[in-house]
Amino acid sequence: MNTNYLMPTKILMGEDCIRSNALELAGLGRKALIVTGKNSAKRNGSLDDVLFSLDKNGQHYALYDQVMSNPTIACVYEGAAVARREQVDFVIGIGGGSAMDAAKVIALLARQDIPREELLSKVHKPDALPLAMVPTTAGTGSEVTPYAILTNDIAQTKTPIGSLALFPRCALLDAGYMAELPPGTTLNTALDALSHAVEGMLSVRANPMTDLLAGESIRQIASCFEVLHLGVLEPQHRRALLYGSVLAGMVIANTGTTAVHSMGHLLTYFRGIAHGGANGLLLPAFIRRVQGGMPERMANIWPLTGFPGIDQFSSALAGLLGEREELSEEEIEKFSAAAIRAKNVRNCPVVLSYEDIAAIYRESFACQDGNLKEIC
Amino acid sequence: MNTNYLMPTKILMGEDCIRSNALELAGLGRKALIVTGKNSAKRNGSLDDVLFSLDKNGQHYALYDQVMSNPTIACVYEGAAVARREQVDFVIGIGGGSAMDAAKVIALLARQDIPREELLSKVHKPDALPLAMVPTTAGTGSEVTPYAILTNDIAQTKTPIGSLALFPRCALLDAGYMAELPPGTTLNTALDALSHAVEGMLSVRANPMTDLLAGESIRQIASCFEVLHLGVLEPQHRRALLYGSVLAGMVIANTGTTAVHSMGHLLTYFRGIAHGGANGLLLPAFIRRVQGGMPERMANIWPLTGFPGIDQFSSALAGLLGEREELSEEEIEKFSAAAIRAKNVRNCPVVLSYEDIAAIYRESFACQDGNLKEIC
Repeated sequence: MNTNYLMPTKILMGEDCIRSNALELAGLGRKALIVTGKNSAKRNGSLDDVLFSLDKNGQHYALYDQVMSNPTIACVYEGAAVARREQVDFVIGIGGGSAMDAAKVIALLARQDIPREELLSKVHKPDALPLAMVPTTAGTGSEVTPYAILTNDIAQTKTPIGSLALFPRCALLDAGYMAELPPGTTLNTALDALSHAVEGMLSVRANPMTDLLAGESIRQIASCFEVLHLGVLEPQHRRALLYGSVLAGMVIANTGTTAVHSMGHLLTYFRGIAHGGANGLLLPAFIRRVQGGMPERMANIWPLTGFPGIDQFSSALAGLLGEREELSEEEIEKFSAAAIRAKNVRNCPVVLSYEDIAAIYRESFACQDGNLKEIC
Repeated sequence: MNTNYLMPTKILMGEDCIRSNALELAGLGRKALIVTGKNSAKRNGSLDDVLFSLDKNGQHYALYDQVMSNPTIACVYEGAAVARREQVDFVIGIGGGSAMDAAKVIALLARQDIPREELLSKVHKPDALPLAMVPTTAGTGSEVTPYAILTNDIAQTKTPIGSLALFPRCALLDAGYMAELPPGTTLNTALDALSHAVEGMLSVRANPMTDLLAGESIRQIASCFEVLHLGVLEPQHRRALLYGSVLAGMVIANTGTTAVHSMGHLLTYFRGIAHGGANGLLLPAFIRRVQGGMPERMANIWPLTGFPGIDQFSSALAGLLGEREELSEEEIEKFSAAAIRAKNVRNCPVVLSYEDIAAIYRESFACQDGNLKEIC
């Protein structure tokens, strides 16, 4: 198996890591645009820590705190306008995947004039302002990936932008910011990270290095399944989930994701199902459908994950996900027709057909109505 | 435990990886200086593969093939003069640690005027020509580290230069180049890599990520102990050793090495003992001396290594090293006095005294005269 592995982002992780690594920000520029959502960064202390470090370095900043969940094209152009007006020369994203992904695209748009209609449809020059990232959820891994996902109202889904210029210069990870996260957010983001690690192992681009990181990621996250179920997490669980999520980010930065993510984006776009939860929901049926086509690979994967096989993995997830929503046959057809067009459907050695994708949607949602034992 | 982790080098590993990744070199510049030794790169096919890829990209090159084992200051200034005269804009190192380390310093000297007497004694600007590396031994890890080690005749040892600018842009790893390596070289370089992984785990800068990489490195290398002993390696063993060595390089790029390396450099400088063999010789006695001062860390380390404890690890190494040379008490005193001055002696939570270092030398070499079972 050939290896092609790149992870240029410097990873700084630990308690109080922003204040104790203030100098890491010093090299990035003179004036930062801080990109974040309306509230969480102010509440959990991360914004204060960033401001403390910028002040210590004698760096200036402007604030764009209007990023919503599943950020829109309008949002990133608004942020980029602030970046240009304020003449910032680097960008700091603080928040979950939404804030960090918006920060990435703002950093790109601050350096390049890209027409709105081309933002999600063309390949852009690898040129963006330097980025630093402060994740405040343990899930997305965006702090170490070259991807940003935006809501795409034309294609009616969420669409990724990928560019080497979107690899952050540094990721500052402090699990303390996650102490007050609601149980639902904690669970959904953990499932997102888990999905990254598993999908990375099922990717055509998986290699020994990404498998090593993915295996450890899955072990870290799975070690928290019980407390995730109970919804009561101690600091060591927060640290394990954060470590698991950054490892999973390092994986997908190299492997990309699979059909699970494309299928999940449609559930988020049309049904408002949280990104991570959507992935967690789809993952077992996806694995069941592809594993027969790659038996050797799966035989290598399970020992790395710590699960004996799909049945145990599926049961563990079912316990976390609880009751499921309903999906109509009409929705299944619509989503399947859209998902089959996504590039990452071809990122697994077993390439799914429209019928496969529809079956995965069907099986995943069937679990809610009592058929769990039979199908999942 | 806080994490501070950086690995900006792109890692491309697999059969025929230079020819199949020619484009990776295309972005580095217009004309390369190829830095290598007199023979091996010509014999093992690596030079041909690099020339093929440069030609495919329409890139030019100059060749500096005068790097000796344990390269000198004179060598790197000579190489840098070629780089300037030929107006190259990037550097490709092909070979073992000697060629790659020389390539790094040549890349530095091609961009900066540094007086010879300041090369090993001052900190330099992080400015060097872009570097690509092709290791042809599985040991040094230099292809993924920001270090270069040169022979230092003033200090009478080997001295490292460290700079972020010395991180190669890419490492191209093909175990095929190692097929014809003599058993002694294979063993010595494997022991160098093993020492990197173990020392990384014993470093004050060890963190969960470096431990993950180090554990896997040790497992890969230890899986070859039997064939290393026999001196007959199949391609899968070469691949395991190469993977183990690049992982170990990723570790020390972040953790640095410990007293073992400083002590080993003196054995190489004064006694001509191969670098890796010198480290392997010293490692067990070093571990015995420090493990009592860090019991919790050691309890975490052994399961990661796959060895139950120091006795089994030590026996495995003793079996590989065979008969040892003799070291006089006078030499022990001289080497200990020099080693204690090295920075990396303070890189382990248990900081060694002069007496500790002398005792490690003594115990390591006592093994040759029949005291193996008693002491090692």
